[in-house]
Amino acid sequence: MSETQSWKLAGEHKRKALLSLIPFEWRLTDPLPSPAEVPDLRNGTIQSHLSSREIMITEMDCLLLLEQLASGALSSHEVTMAFCHRAAVAHQMISCLHEIFFDAALRDADACDTYLKEHGKPMGALHGLPVSLKDVVNIKDVDTTMGFVGLIGNSTKISSESQIVALLRRLGAVLYVKTSVPTGSFSGDTSNNIIQYTPNPCNRRLTVGGSSGGEGGLLALKGSPLGVGTDIGGSVRVPAVWNGCYGLRPSTGRIPYEGSASIVDGQTAVPFVLGFMAPSAEAITLASKGLLSLSPWMDDPLVHEIPWRDDIYTKFKESASGRSRLAFGIMRTDHHVNVQPPVERAMDIVVNKLESLGHSVIDWNPPSHLEAVSLWDKAVTIDGGKSFHEAIKLSGEPPHRVDLGPLDAAKPEPATVFGLSPQPEANATEINSINIAIRNYKKSYLDYWNSTAEFTGTGRPVDAFLMPVAPTPAPAPGKVRYFGYTSVFNVLDFSACGVPVTEVQKDVDRYSNARYSPRNKLDGLVHDDYDPELSDGAPVGIQVVGRRLQEEKVLAIAEVLGNAIKGTSDRGNTKL
Amino acid sequence: MSETQSWKLAGEHKRKALLSLIPFEWRLTDPLPSPAEVPDLRNGTIQSHLSSREIMITEMDCLLLLEQLASGALSSHEVTMAFCHRAAVAHQMISCLHEIFFDAALRDADACDTYLKEHGKPMGALHGLPVSLKDVVNIKDVDTTMGFVGLIGNSTKISSESQIVALLRRLGAVLYVKTSVPTGSFSGDTSNNIIQYTPNPCNRRLTVGGSSGGEGGLLALKGSPLGVGTDIGGSVRVPAVWNGCYGLRPSTGRIPYEGSASIVDGQTAVPFVLGFMAPSAEAITLASKGLLSLSPWMDDPLVHEIPWRDDIYTKFKESASGRSRLAFGIMRTDHHVNVQPPVERAMDIVVNKLESLGHSVIDWNPPSHLEAVSLWDKAVTIDGGKSFHEAIKLSGEPPHRVDLGPLDAAKPEPATVFGLSPQPEANATEINSINIAIRNYKKSYLDYWNSTAEFTGTGRPVDAFLMPVAPTPAPAPGKVRYFGYTSVFNVLDFSACGVPVTEVQKDVDRYSNARYSPRNKLDGLVHDDYDPELSDGAPVGIQVVGRRLQEEKVLAIAEVLGNAIKGTSDRGNTKL
Repeated sequence: MSETQSWKLAGEHKRKALLSLIPFEWRLTDPLPSPAEVPDLRNGTIQSHLSSREIMITEMDCLLLLEQLASGALSSHEVTMAFCHRAAVAHQMISCLHEIFFDAALRDADACDTYLKEHGKPMGALHGLPVSLKDVVNIKDVDTTMGFVGLIGNSTKISSESQIVALLRRLGAVLYVKTSVPTGSFSGDTSNNIIQYTPNPCNRRLTVGGSSGGEGGLLALKGSPLGVGTDIGGSVRVPAVWNGCYGLRPSTGRIPYEGSASIVDGQTAVPFVLGFMAPSAEAITLASKGLLSLSPWMDDPLVHEIPWRDDIYTKFKESASGRSRLAFGIMRTDHHVNVQPPVERAMDIVVNKLESLGHSVIDWNPPSHLEAVSLWDKAVTIDGGKSFHEAIKLSGEPPHRVDLGPLDAAKPEPATVFGLSPQPEANATEINSINIAIRNYKKSYLDYWNSTAEFTGTGRPVDAFLMPVAPTPAPAPGKVRYFGYTSVFNVLDFSACGVPVTEVQKDVDRYSNARYSPRNKLDGLVHDDYDPELSDGAPVGIQVVGRRLQEEKVLAIAEVLGNAIKGTSDRGNTKL
Repeated sequence: MSETQSWKLAGEHKRKALLSLIPFEWRLTDPLPSPAEVPDLRNGTIQSHLSSREIMITEMDCLLLLEQLASGALSSHEVTMAFCHRAAVAHQMISCLHEIFFDAALRDADACDTYLKEHGKPMGALHGLPVSLKDVVNIKDVDTTMGFVGLIGNSTKISSESQIVALLRRLGAVLYVKTSVPTGSFSGDTSNNIIQYTPNPCNRRLTVGGSSGGEGGLLALKGSPLGVGTDIGGSVRVPAVWNGCYGLRPSTGRIPYEGSASIVDGQTAVPFVLGFMAPSAEAITLASKGLLSLSPWMDDPLVHEIPWRDDIYTKFKESASGRSRLAFGIMRTDHHVNVQPPVERAMDIVVNKLESLGHSVIDWNPPSHLEAVSLWDKAVTIDGGKSFHEAIKLSGEPPHRVDLGPLDAAKPEPATVFGLSPQPEANATEINSINIAIRNYKKSYLDYWNSTAEFTGTGRPVDAFLMPVAPTPAPAPGKVRYFGYTSVFNVLDFSACGVPVTEVQKDVDRYSNARYSPRNKLDGLVHDDYDPELSDGAPVGIQVVGRRLQEEKVLAIAEVLGNAIKGTSDRGNTKL
């Protein structure tokens, strides 16, 4: 058997094994209509496979669902079963799962139900709630492949669960699936040689985004009420927003990464962070608050001893709602790649909403984001892609996209920033220089931020600033060209929450000028990529950005802003 | 002129220029008695050069002094003048200063006095108080040589002051001297080719310690009420304790390092931290609290948004005093190098004191400290000493000790861990591996710490643990052999405060066994180094160690414990 066949077969075998874990009665028998025919699976398509009670449970607001679980009005068994079913259907539609462990989940759900009966109180803040996790988190008896074929079957080598898993279990969460990622969890398109490709369920002609793409797709289809993704360059915020959801990129040191996998492990300048993703910001707040109530710094040495600060959260929730005036920076372009029309309109909606709530907005003109993007590239590739290519070699799978059709063989395009083969590693002097440059960049950014006190009219520097999560809504597969709108905040280690704002309206979101002078080649490509017909209905959003370790403030503002927009907007057919 | 002459002359020139900044009337005319004749300069010797009012001011408890300054009972001008005088005398006795800027200090002191008159309130928590700083901190118009001859005259290149300087000034502190360091601030003996050598003023036959050696010596002589050192392997704690003072090694991210110099800049695994040193723990608490009241995270991107937590401080101050039972781990040896008799006795004093206050003590048996010591060596030398040797080459000064006499030329001994010449740099894979190993070590240490809940009797893991800051009191010059007792906590990034406990008593502190089986060669050397006659009167102390970011707890315990010991002990002739 040739090497090529071997990795293909291994991927196929895992793919089939996964399907076999779906109960027979939940299997889809009829093929889906084509993406052109039914681009959006959220309204009727997925529901057609579920009972009305399952629909009621899985579409319930997360906080209400938790109340019902805590009171015993709904059993965790029933809720878990409903989400298992919906996730199973979702997976058959968009290949969004890497791992399925429904049996273990139902055992855990039963344990929750028993606990509630015996103790008369819930296990914790997430009592009985199914929670999905990106496939970089380690769970007992379950593989963690990160999308590498060569890591299939590694569950026996996983000696302990990730810290986040232990904490979620203590909060009463029920874990039931792990979600799909691009190979190595390092791309904006979720494709790999195991599950192949995850399309966007809001518009199947578009990519789901990445790298927490399976999470994004599953949440959009309400196959999960709350998910855990990871973010090193936008991998929580982008797939959250491109699927109409919220996603928090916390600063390092708040949510424990201990015991989870990373293909750039030991690279500390711009590391992965875990972040919650959900259809509502309130669910993220609740999960973050619950997690921090368990003092995660006792067990993860990299988590800072900073409990959930409810005073800050409450203060900004009230202020943002209009009780007192806040000041926001507004950044509509990063001056390297301009945004497409629907993103421009999303920013208009946000600015109008902030002003109508009585807040000040000022233009945000920070140090060059392009400098951060360049530092990001250097930091994440210090090992020249050695770890990535070693993982690739385990199976012999190719390090390029295999989903691009005829182009592929002739001109292979690397699937990641790590290229088609390992490059020379950086040495200590180079790595130290990167660290110093990043620190200096952070310092200049803080200095700029502080300088805005002159212009806000509040006497303070801006409280937070807002910018798109990406210059585009989810593009067609293979056309995620630029992560600079998000990766800059990984370099800065800022707290940032993606907020859904609107959906593409093909008749409204048009370029006004027929002729466009691109800033550069990339900007020209992104400009020309936009096709309102193709993008119609795709979710669009922005991010609320705070300084480092300001998760409470950022979540408070994201909640108020998102809800205010939802209350008045044309977000279309997403029923929340 | 030969290269050798050139660096010698440059050092001599700077040395003389420094002396010329001391007013003529403060110059010492008579030579000091020999170290054998008068080992301890603290009792009578230094005072003989000062007026009784200067002695009263400079020997006043720091908190009382601050009260007098804040009320206007003492002017900052007078207090500053007194400390300038005492520091000038101290420098002439032990070469403890690198930079003198008395004129600027007196201008700042006058500004404080004017402020108080005009506003009727002090400028801040350190109103009018002279504060000394280790010569890695950047101050306008003042060199920062870090002990390198080749950096003499670099004041014109220093474009902005260190963040700590800006904050201290906002608190009303008056800066007047920078203190001596070993070449590159990277050794336990404070010697370099500028100031040559700083002996220990408590016993001049011994080393002052390092790398914040000038700070330690100046504080012991009460030429400063409060100092700022840096610690990468014990450089605050060791010279503090070896000079009868307190010194806090905070975790990274509490006290801003922004804008200060480091010979391992960009190396982030085990970085330098700034820490306060003082004759009392209360002074360190006051300075830390004041500094954190200024939200240093607004300007230093690496400082965590954690204000001074007075609730934690107060709780542990009350508990430690005996109001409720705390549990302490006790570690008397690191199992690699055993302690000398006076250190053993210091631990006995501490344990007895804790028990008499009603606290529990248990043996502390953590993961191997030697593993951390090995990781420390790897982490701090990732660049193979390139930065260090480049700084050496600027002047052509030798990278070995020049104070060892005839041995020197025949068998040069490196002055630092960076050896006699640059070594190969580590690459990204190696650096990532070090980072991972350090994280795993931290995790195993936390797991051990958590496991002690079983044995404490309080239901909690130990609240803090105690161990010596070094296996020895200050040894003879050139015999600082082992930093493992402190460097382990730089690897762990724990908060640790050095606490003075006793002084060597030549008749009491004797080995009981005539024969000793050393654990290894190093242990044998350290054992054989001990000479009770030579060490008589040398300060001895321990460190209180907390988890990461537990500065409030550690300071509270250090205060209570230190004062309790002081109240009952034989600390000898140190009048506090």
